[in-house]
Amino acid sequence: MDYSKFIQEQIEEIRNEVGDGIAINAVSGGVDSSVVTVLAHRALGPRLRTIFVDNALMREGEPHLVVQGFAGIGIPVELVDARREFLDALKGLTDPELKRQAITDTFYRDVFVTEVRRSGAKCLLHGTILTDIEETVAGIKRQHNILSQLGIDTSEAYGYKVIEPLKTLRKDGVRELARQLGLPDSIARRIPFPGPALATRIVGDVTAERLATVRAATAIVEAELADTGAFQYFAVLLGDHATGIRGGRREFGQIIVVRCIDSVDAREASVRELPWELLHRLSQRITQIPGVNRCLYDLTPKPPATVEYV
Amino acid sequence: MDYSKFIQEQIEEIRNEVGDGIAINAVSGGVDSSVVTVLAHRALGPRLRTIFVDNALMREGEPHLVVQGFAGIGIPVELVDARREFLDALKGLTDPELKRQAITDTFYRDVFVTEVRRSGAKCLLHGTILTDIEETVAGIKRQHNILSQLGIDTSEAYGYKVIEPLKTLRKDGVRELARQLGLPDSIARRIPFPGPALATRIVGDVTAERLATVRAATAIVEAELADTGAFQYFAVLLGDHATGIRGGRREFGQIIVVRCIDSVDAREASVRELPWELLHRLSQRITQIPGVNRCLYDLTPKPPATVEYV
Repeated sequence: MDYSKFIQEQIEEIRNEVGDGIAINAVSGGVDSSVVTVLAHRALGPRLRTIFVDNALMREGEPHLVVQGFAGIGIPVELVDARREFLDALKGLTDPELKRQAITDTFYRDVFVTEVRRSGAKCLLHGTILTDIEETVAGIKRQHNILSQLGIDTSEAYGYKVIEPLKTLRKDGVRELARQLGLPDSIARRIPFPGPALATRIVGDVTAERLATVRAATAIVEAELADTGAFQYFAVLLGDHATGIRGGRREFGQIIVVRCIDSVDAREASVRELPWELLHRLSQRITQIPGVNRCLYDLTPKPPATVEYV
Repeated sequence: MDYSKFIQEQIEEIRNEVGDGIAINAVSGGVDSSVVTVLAHRALGPRLRTIFVDNALMREGEPHLVVQGFAGIGIPVELVDARREFLDALKGLTDPELKRQAITDTFYRDVFVTEVRRSGAKCLLHGTILTDIEETVAGIKRQHNILSQLGIDTSEAYGYKVIEPLKTLRKDGVRELARQLGLPDSIARRIPFPGPALATRIVGDVTAERLATVRAATAIVEAELADTGAFQYFAVLLGDHATGIRGGRREFGQIIVVRCIDSVDAREASVRELPWELLHRLSQRITQIPGVNRCLYDLTPKPPATVEYV
């Protein structure tokens, strides 16, 4: 595939669609939304408004890293603090579908729609990729139709346009595009991180305290496994507790699962055979997080498991 | 240590204590209670009554294997079917301490006490070992005083005697004793299996259906790991569920943890570094159990984890 031709075509397409209006997009720091941001910024310059929503579900230091990263390549990103809205929406939910729905609804119908209206934009840019569309059709993922998610009836919503520049690419194509666009490796090679963020890494209740636990475990896993070159690696906080013993006394602690997989495009995944020295070190560091006394390694490929737990 | 002298002393001690009366004991098939059964049978012959309580929590085929195993060495064991009593007592319990308490109470105060009274025995034999006593004193295990557990006030219960022939030995000593007594390796080298049996291998609700799931996983783990020579290996069914994908459709499945440890006497334990080929095969077989779509390997030594989860 000729990526420089593809880039030129998408830039022209975005210019044609947006005309002399304003466009808006949300960047998560993931490779899909980051590539869309760069393409749209090249097409529109200051007529693009890009926001980063802090949903309380991000990894350690992530909101500022993303904003600073884009500032470094001359693209302004506005930080929208919506932590309270998301934590309130997740309160008491344990069912994965309800959690994902609450996050989607809070993002689109509450936070993003407010920003869209405030911006005056009639064009929304979205990082949908081919795998998203295929998995939606197959009933594996929820539908990703952004206008319905915004609560906008497409038949009545004359004037709103959605632009999805990456909808013909898979993850590996997007990565190559990121390199061609000159995005730093920290973005082009960034391991996939799901939209619902750390909420997909918590089985059971999502609270500020439990987010802090899985955030600490995630930082350890990412630091220890960065050199593996694996497709994806992360920590999951289970809802279960198990007995343990510390200082000679019985305790009832939380359980962290480490998952590390190899994959081309996340449609199938195999388990990485990590060295035992590394597995022991992960277990040793993770069980030092307050309240955690078990560390497990996920042995399941996709299928029959999915990559995420929620 | 001179095991043949120890055996002779214990046999004489049992004869002295029981006199011309009747004694009763419960055998679980574990090495401790099996050794006590053989010692007491040598001491008392037909004046020993040995029961095996089927508590619905045993492994595949275990009740009949134990009864037949002892029949093979000339020791009659009576099978007491108490499955309904135990499942009823466990209904709705998820707290580990409450589950253990329900099993202890059902065993001692309901099932065993009935058998003791019916037998006319005034002597009870019990497989307490030194580690049990130490861990009770340290507050790690619940107390094991069999008369209190039977609801018998020791000060009023003149006439009841408890005999604990193994109370000066640790697990390795009991194993050696088993060999000296000519017990088959299937008992002498049998990996430790806790009193509350498969209920300690289920986090959350203990039901007949969930017992069937962990029983199937246990059979796979025991078959695959029998040749490892590890101290203990088993499967645990978690209470959590995780997303999966089968036949192209999203599903919500159960999670099995495999634990395999090395230890001398269970006071401390390290994680066995199993070959990856074996780990993959375990995962592949375990995720074929209906309703199970994840398989995890426990990376945590004791401490900070305990051997069991419940």
